[in-house]
Amino acid sequence: MKQETAVAIHPLAQFAAQLQWSDVPEAVQRRTEDLWVDWFGSVLAGCKARPVASITRFALSQGPAQGPSEVIAHGASSSPMMAALANAAASHFAEQDDVHNGSVFHPAAVVFPPALAVAQQIGASGAELMAACVAGYEVGIRVGEFLGRSHYRIFHTTATAGTLAAAAAVGRLLKLTPAQMQHAFGSAGTQSAGLWEFLRTAADSKQLHTAHAATAGLMAAHLAQDGFTGAQDIFTGPQGLAAGMSTDSNPAKLTDGLGTRWATAETSFKWHASCRHTHPAADALQQVMREHGLAPADIAQVTCHVHQGAIDVLGPVVSPATVHQSKFSMGTVLALAARFGHAGLTEFDAEYLAPDTVMLREKVRMELDAEVDAAYPQRWIGKVTVQTTDGRQLHGRVDEPKGDPGNTLSRDEITAKALRLAAYGGAVQAAQAEAAVQRLWQVQAWPRVENLLA
Amino acid sequence: MKQETAVAIHPLAQFAAQLQWSDVPEAVQRRTEDLWVDWFGSVLAGCKARPVASITRFALSQGPAQGPSEVIAHGASSSPMMAALANAAASHFAEQDDVHNGSVFHPAAVVFPPALAVAQQIGASGAELMAACVAGYEVGIRVGEFLGRSHYRIFHTTATAGTLAAAAAVGRLLKLTPAQMQHAFGSAGTQSAGLWEFLRTAADSKQLHTAHAATAGLMAAHLAQDGFTGAQDIFTGPQGLAAGMSTDSNPAKLTDGLGTRWATAETSFKWHASCRHTHPAADALQQVMREHGLAPADIAQVTCHVHQGAIDVLGPVVSPATVHQSKFSMGTVLALAARFGHAGLTEFDAEYLAPDTVMLREKVRMELDAEVDAAYPQRWIGKVTVQTTDGRQLHGRVDEPKGDPGNTLSRDEITAKALRLAAYGGAVQAAQAEAAVQRLWQVQAWPRVENLLA
Repeated sequence: MKQETAVAIHPLAQFAAQLQWSDVPEAVQRRTEDLWVDWFGSVLAGCKARPVASITRFALSQGPAQGPSEVIAHGASSSPMMAALANAAASHFAEQDDVHNGSVFHPAAVVFPPALAVAQQIGASGAELMAACVAGYEVGIRVGEFLGRSHYRIFHTTATAGTLAAAAAVGRLLKLTPAQMQHAFGSAGTQSAGLWEFLRTAADSKQLHTAHAATAGLMAAHLAQDGFTGAQDIFTGPQGLAAGMSTDSNPAKLTDGLGTRWATAETSFKWHASCRHTHPAADALQQVMREHGLAPADIAQVTCHVHQGAIDVLGPVVSPATVHQSKFSMGTVLALAARFGHAGLTEFDAEYLAPDTVMLREKVRMELDAEVDAAYPQRWIGKVTVQTTDGRQLHGRVDEPKGDPGNTLSRDEITAKALRLAAYGGAVQAAQAEAAVQRLWQVQAWPRVENLLA
Repeated sequence: MKQETAVAIHPLAQFAAQLQWSDVPEAVQRRTEDLWVDWFGSVLAGCKARPVASITRFALSQGPAQGPSEVIAHGASSSPMMAALANAAASHFAEQDDVHNGSVFHPAAVVFPPALAVAQQIGASGAELMAACVAGYEVGIRVGEFLGRSHYRIFHTTATAGTLAAAAAVGRLLKLTPAQMQHAFGSAGTQSAGLWEFLRTAADSKQLHTAHAATAGLMAAHLAQDGFTGAQDIFTGPQGLAAGMSTDSNPAKLTDGLGTRWATAETSFKWHASCRHTHPAADALQQVMREHGLAPADIAQVTCHVHQGAIDVLGPVVSPATVHQSKFSMGTVLALAARFGHAGLTEFDAEYLAPDTVMLREKVRMELDAEVDAAYPQRWIGKVTVQTTDGRQLHGRVDEPKGDPGNTLSRDEITAKALRLAAYGGAVQAAQAEAAVQRLWQVQAWPRVENLLA
């Protein structure tokens, strides 16, 4: 009944549909497992948080009371869509999930939840799940890079490119043909949404964004499998994503090094529990404090030399009113890093409004820096100038913040971080989290993806 | 735990949260019932169509096997979200659902399905349902007007403003406070999505767009009821809807005549089964053919003098490859109107590629007209110039196409149209459709919203 105009298959759709786990170089396979375990910690940290609990209650009210897919740490299961909705919301709460610098995109939160939910439904193997997730990472990151900096000024790229990443991962699990994958991309991209406006009043939208992206992509992939068609050029068509939501899109990014450049392995782990835009300066401040033996009380002023994106996202947060908002306050993050050596979840909760934090926060300002801005988003350079109370002017610098590929975490550090996050979330017993993390490291060998928590 | 910055309540949120059925003037109440019955016909026309069937299968696979909400004409029920997903997809398939000219927005498809699903769940009365739907219409139309023509060039306003309309309707049913309604608007607006790119290859996205808007708005309202917060100025904030998706937004439109101007009653019924942008010219062509007694064979060329929006949406459709695409082909629509006096669903299916249609289609061209363009979108003027085969140049004109408020349908015409659509859809028996339509006219008196189909 449906006549279809013959169109070329986009190399990105072809790639996502045909990627095999055995095509992925071993180092990238291992890094994918690192990201997988790291993601699990973020889910456990966020799953009981108020906004996540709201989304989870909604998901459980709309899905079946039992289903093939795990609602992690809620002792519940439901349909894949509703499990993905809840788990994706949880993944992005603690601001500890991974980030790809060049695309300013948080892949884990929108890739693992829908892929896991569908893998549990269809009984996929662990290797199939991992291959699908690599497809999701490679697609989502390239879409984020394609949409560019102008997009990120208004749109939360994790939310928008996230629909494509989720569709790629789920589509790969469903064994879509390249043509079906292209339709899934069309259906996913036409649901791409997510505005930064919520930051201004510290609203809860961030978790809604990942939940939305995960489910929109999941739906797009299922529909494509059923013959439902989507726009054939959702990326660069005259009424497509770039036309509507970017002024500096770069189509070459969509296929950049497909199959040879593994964007998955470029993904960074988050060390501080705050917006990634604060990390380079926080590390640079710690560097200069270490080098010169400074205590917080020695600091009269800190100037962070930053890229424009940091000013766009962090600039509106002048006087943080909530813990969440304080993670987007450059001053708060630097104050906690200076005071405790690490701006972690516990430090934020207990200290974000402490007088010593606020006093230091007020001494921090941002300034656009040409070198840092030109290097961004490929490199996130940290540069600060510190005025000391005794009149010295000192410079701090890091070229790769901790957690970046060149300054990455060991498997022990990843395990420790995941267990710290699990303890923070308080949703599961320590022994249960530890057993699960040990199992998760073995994902590649799983004959069938079962519940992550026994 | 959550500290909230004090913000002003937007008058539109206030209005939507507090609207009572008794506040709605009687003529507007009656028109709302007209729109309700008219919508029902569209659902029955579309519910078995291939793309709608895909979305419905997906909805039923992700929701509970039984639930409080009717999946219309599928003999099925599920959760409100999944019923709304299926019913909203069905509403927008046949291109016969209503349209508000000034906003170029199709309210019925995104308002009635989520409101009905939630009304059935909570046992609302018919009057409560209708009041909620008026709230949805008034909000969605104003958001569409606010986003403006630049938005519509790339984005399907029914999809984008639709999330707000659905949130308003469901939020009213859930008795959200004005502050909660404002949060619901934030959560709905940050999910606003829908690109026109799919038209270029006649893809199925239109039904996905209404399905997405209905469920995103429904989710936003439920989350707001549960304390989940959204951006406080999703409309005009520096990283809000207008900033991201419009270059000619007009904030005054958001509150234009709230409570005195009833946008609901400005909504037009669709007479031809095609994109609304084709209707004025189709009616103008019929007018000139009637006036001069022309037969299709007398026509050598038709020039449609149109607004830019018509060129943007219809221009890419040069040689329609599917029935659906042909509804966006000005030439096809005018050919069917010329040949049959009405471009209805049956005419499209049987005749869109008939040689006589194609021959006439190739004689039709569009030209930007300053008067028509300036009047649009407040008024949709139809203007054509016909060259006859014997060398005459004739002018046709209508100032209000059939179905517009000044040239509206009677209740008998609405009933007949709904039953024609039901027969076309083939999902229910004629007697069943007739009984349902008769019941639907009584909605205001229903103590409790039950299934629409017995």
